[in-house]
Amino acid sequence: MARVAGAPPRPAERLEGFSDAVFAIAITLLALDVRVVGFRPGHLGAAVGHLWPQLLAYAATFLIVGQVWASHHGMFRWIDRADHVLLLLDVGMLGCIALQPFPTSLVATALSRGTARDVALAVSLYSGLLFVGGVFYNGVWRYAARRGLLVDGLDPGRVRWQARRYGIGVLVYLVAAAVAFVSVPVAIGLDLALAVGYLIPSPNLRPRD
Amino acid sequence: MARVAGAPPRPAERLEGFSDAVFAIAITLLALDVRVVGFRPGHLGAAVGHLWPQLLAYAATFLIVGQVWASHHGMFRWIDRADHVLLLLDVGMLGCIALQPFPTSLVATALSRGTARDVALAVSLYSGLLFVGGVFYNGVWRYAARRGLLVDGLDPGRVRWQARRYGIGVLVYLVAAAVAFVSVPVAIGLDLALAVGYLIPSPNLRPRD
Amino acid sequence: MARVAGAPPRPAERLEGFSDAVFAIAITLLALDVRVVGFRPGHLGAAVGHLWPQLLAYAATFLIVGQVWASHHGMFRWIDRADHVLLLLDVGMLGCIALQPFPTSLVATALSRGTARDVALAVSLYSGLLFVGGVFYNGVWRYAARRGLLVDGLDPGRVRWQARRYGIGVLVYLVAAAVAFVSVPVAIGLDLALAVGYLIPSPNLRPRD
Amino acid sequence: MARVAGAPPRPAERLEGFSDAVFAIAITLLALDVRVVGFRPGHLGAAVGHLWPQLLAYAATFLIVGQVWASHHGMFRWIDRADHVLLLLDVGMLGCIALQPFPTSLVATALSRGTARDVALAVSLYSGLLFVGGVFYNGVWRYAARRGLLVDGLDPGRVRWQARRYGIGVLVYLVAAAVAFVSVPVAIGLDLALAVGYLIPSPNLRPRD
Repeated sequence: MARVAGAPPRPAERLEGFSDAVFAIAITLLALDVRVVGFRPGHLGAAVGHLWPQLLAYAATFLIVGQVWASHHGMFRWIDRADHVLLLLDVGMLGCIALQPFPTSLVATALSRGTARDVALAVSLYSGLLFVGGVFYNGVWRYAARRGLLVDGLDPGRVRWQARRYGIGVLVYLVAAAVAFVSVPVAIGLDLALAVGYLIPSPNLRPRD
Repeated sequence: MARVAGAPPRPAERLEGFSDAVFAIAITLLALDVRVVGFRPGHLGAAVGHLWPQLLAYAATFLIVGQVWASHHGMFRWIDRADHVLLLLDVGMLGCIALQPFPTSLVATALSRGTARDVALAVSLYSGLLFVGGVFYNGVWRYAARRGLLVDGLDPGRVRWQARRYGIGVLVYLVAAAVAFVSVPVAIGLDLALAVGYLIPSPNLRPRD
Repeated sequence: MARVAGAPPRPAERLEGFSDAVFAIAITLLALDVRVVGFRPGHLGAAVGHLWPQLLAYAATFLIVGQVWASHHGMFRWIDRADHVLLLLDVGMLGCIALQPFPTSLVATALSRGTARDVALAVSLYSGLLFVGGVFYNGVWRYAARRGLLVDGLDPGRVRWQARRYGIGVLVYLVAAAVAFVSVPVAIGLDLALAVGYLIPSPNLRPRD
Repeated sequence: MARVAGAPPRPAERLEGFSDAVFAIAITLLALDVRVVGFRPGHLGAAVGHLWPQLLAYAATFLIVGQVWASHHGMFRWIDRADHVLLLLDVGMLGCIALQPFPTSLVATALSRGTARDVALAVSLYSGLLFVGGVFYNGVWRYAARRGLLVDGLDPGRVRWQARRYGIGVLVYLVAAAVAFVSVPVAIGLDLALAVGYLIPSPNLRPRD
């Protein structure tokens, strides 16, 4: 694997720390949308009750982003070094994660005050942004594999298998973005199923000795 | 302790860093609620004075969340590795911590503009969210203990004792959530007593040689 | 130095990381107050010009909080371990830092729309919160020194000298809080002088061999 | 290189962590500006469509700040230690980064509701703040080089070359700030070209053995 004269790849730890910080902030800023802006005295309960779309959107997105973080965490166990392109692919992915509160808020707003068409559009944008983030996510893994930035001694077959696994994930988001216009529950179900599906741990990429 | 083929547990450091970031952000975002939105020239003092519920809620929640962080910090001294389920239990707990500014703001708003019933409901939701977070918190410890993710050589009796100690804490929050409808000061007192009670350091879980 | 049976003091690194995160978030949230809320088309320049109090307050507070962070950074080079009380003293200090955007915004608002009395009060509260944070800050150092949590081999005379140095700093904030009612520029000057004065590096506490 | 009696330079890791946190928060807070504040039921799509200036400004600034972070990351690979002045130069740079959401929001607002003159002013302020931050950035590198805070064994010629490279970058921002009043697209193009130009990796500063 030839690398042109330039900066040597550097340990990926600082990239991990930076990514973790963006994940942590994006996930925490989600909560800013859950708030009562006004209520009639004696009717705080009703005002809180009207927040169910915000609470639902918060819980779902916290689960999904938390899962992406955990998955990213798992992926970076196998990435040893980072060069400038890898940094920027990761930054692109983080840019999508940091923007996720926006469609999350759209979904909650559409559920509160919009029509069925508004909800469908919001859920489609929500899944669509997860898809774009997933494209960068896949790019990180494929680029690292191709440029020899993974830890030494991984089984090449399993590295490719993992690339396919990530690729399927990103396609599910794309399907959800399209399906939203047909059935919102199915689209949300696909997004959440992916989060739950990833609970099944990744395979160990290091070959048994 | 059998573990099915899958990702090997990994050092828990990155999970700690991520958790710390969420704690730090949630605790800092609390301060966004303490703000003067308008005042008559020459009467800034009065406007600040009316913020006492916000300041009180800020101080109490900062103390409570700070204590949970310190306690989490202590717990993770004994957790060596993290698998995917542990990550998600921790993420669930963080989801509650990140949402705590919401009931904090409810309490402050209810104290400012609500009836006694509004205050009771707000304090109950406040304690209730601490309870839900506590359930995840207990889950982290019990799961880690059962799956052999603790550091080696701990005294099993003390590990169980610690589990009971965490369990009592979470029950106090549940009691506070119920008691709020009878007496708000007692409920708040319970929440704060727990924070102060935890000042008494955890026992050393490592047996003396 | 007797320590009752309990958790052993632990390396202070995680406390440093947590503190850094709170500093970083508080300092970054300051910028949220610098914003144009409305302007007449063609007059954006005038709208930005009216933000001078916000920009000034931002720059001053960024400098002051940045200096406190750098000073905290320096202090923790000499603190080796942290017990629960030290954690909570540090959390108390962080609670003040995280709240500093509040009086910062008060000062900017008072300069924009308030009377001279409003400005004096805002500057006094601004300095007063720095004072309260400073009390906790001093507490961290004195407690660590008394409980033997410092790194080994420090010169006891210099440790006490450092305590006096921190003590003088906190008194300057208290004086500034009082002086604000007499002269706002002098009070602000004192707060800033402290930030600049601390540019003079702390002495090396480790005795020359 | 004589150093006056004072604090010994300390490893630069904690400064990196702090800087990363500020970068991560500033970059994530950018997203708060992308939000639909109101819409007519059934017309969510149109409301999202009107957000194109916010989305564009978000994407461009995320790329630029992400690039500055990656570049800062690269620079600190060669900085071994940090003294108090270096800390404060870095804090000054971070103060500009943390404020970048302000001109970003100005650009988006001017594109939405302003005149051509408003847009030119906003883009000029946007580039101007990048310039000021770049001055501090250059200061970090030049100060570290002059005070012997770099890692040992770097090629002095290449260290100077790198200083010139950083110096050219900061001049491009200054040119963009002036050019904005003549041509907004050229100014934005210069800002973005710099981000893309930096994709070309920095040279390896360590001489080949």
